Amino acid sequence: MASDILARLAQVVAAREAGDPNQSYVARLLAKAPDAALKKIGEEATEVVMAAKDLDALGPSSADADRLAAQQRLVGEMADLWFHSLVALHQAGLQPAQVLAELERREGLSGLDEKAARKAQERGA
Amino acid sequence: MASDILARLAQVVAAREAGDPNQSYVARLLAKAPDAALKKIGEEATEVVMAAKDLDALGPSSADADRLAAQQRLVGEMADLWFHSLVALHQAGLQPAQVLAELERREGLSGLDEKAARKAQERGA
Amino acid sequence: MASDILARLAQVVAAREAGDPNQSYVARLLAKAPDAALKKIGEEATEVVMAAKDLDALGPSSADADRLAAQQRLVGEMADLWFHSLVALHQAGLQPAQVLAELERREGLSGLDEKAARKAQERGA
Amino acid sequence: MASDILARLAQVVAAREAGDPNQSYVARLLAKAPDAALKKIGEEATEVVMAAKDLDALGPSSADADRLAAQQRLVGEMADLWFHSLVALHQAGLQPAQVLAELERREGLSGLDEKAARKAQERGA
Repeated sequence: MASDILARLAQVVAAREAGDPNQSYVARLLAKAPDAALKKIGEEATEVVMAAKDLDALGPSSADADRLAAQQRLVGEMADLWFHSLVALHQAGLQPAQVLAELERREGLSGLDEKAARKAQERGA
Repeated sequence: MASDILARLAQVVAAREAGDPNQSYVARLLAKAPDAALKKIGEEATEVVMAAKDLDALGPSSADADRLAAQQRLVGEMADLWFHSLVALHQAGLQPAQVLAELERREGLSGLDEKAARKAQERGA
Repeated sequence: MASDILARLAQVVAAREAGDPNQSYVARLLAKAPDAALKKIGEEATEVVMAAKDLDALGPSSADADRLAAQQRLVGEMADLWFHSLVALHQAGLQPAQVLAELERREGLSGLDEKAARKAQERGA
Repeated sequence: MASDILARLAQVVAAREAGDPNQSYVARLLAKAPDAALKKIGEEATEVVMAAKDLDALGPSSADADRLAAQQRLVGEMADLWFHSLVALHQAGLQPAQVLAELERREGLSGLDEKAARKAQERGA
């Protein structure tokens, strides 16, 4: 159900490609060089990190309202990151379902952790 | 359907919290300060950008096999980014469904583009 | 000599703090929450990576003019990254000389590589 | 004087290229694809952001020792970022002096802020 959202948003992104760059943020992003969307991924990843740090900094004794606000900000930044991920995937001729399938494949194939550990080793090698 | 994968992976991540850091990559990541997972988000975002650039650099006349390999690498890096997003969400006491709901809310509320454009303006302000 | 540039730019940044946000980019950046300058570091780091990838993609047979243009773009993005580093240092009450001294200390203390290797190990631990 | 450090470190990086990857961190980094050093830039930029956030989170009433420790950590992360910048410049056939010259050129040509403001506008356009 929820993942239908990712597929639906990917369709929205694709449909905006033909849109008016003056009226649509996505059309404007897609009309630029691919770097524009990729730059947003770097930027939104940084915002995710900052929002998570702000949440950490609250500590356990913080007011519930403060904590909820900081969590909601992190949710918003993560939504930005995932949304621009969809734009980058579209530019690359890819669908979010392919990323979800890869995540599922790793989980099913050999255990999620084992895969990740192997990958981390390869990288460190 | 696909989003069930995100929810299921989030459960896997949560379950690994009690695991042995020597045997599980996720347990090891969660046993460190929250910064460890956040650093991975910055790192994986950079890898997504590099994989997308490699795909761009192939150009339209590249062999299909090369293009497919580059696309698959981008899918793999995006899976890494999303997976570590799930770890960061877990550390923050959040579920992927909340991010998907936020994406849905933006789409439904006022048009996805309008929201994004407004946000971009706020940031530029 | 060259490093005098970093010290001088740090003074320019500090002087702009009292400036008019409507007239000065740095004054505007400093008037915002510290996150604004930090976000730029994430963004400029991504632009450095993309410019370096574009240079790599040219290959050895590219025209000299193309290579020079790509190198100049990377120089420009690196200048952006270092400039916003100076802004972040200023916000933290630090001087570029302290970063240069740290680089010098590592070199002198135990060999640059050994230090870096040790740090990399600590991180991987 | 200080900038002599950057030039000297650039020479150290260049000299390590012929070194043994098993003994030298830089030799190992340079022996890999250029992506290895670029990935470090994304990673170190994220660490700079996190260290700066930790410093911000301390607040004005924090103990001097805590503040000094957090500042020193930020200095260390910035040194990492600048050091890997030097590695990336080396890989691109560039010298740190060229980046410093670009920073100086911007300052002299038209005022640092004006340049940055123009660039920010171009990007937002």
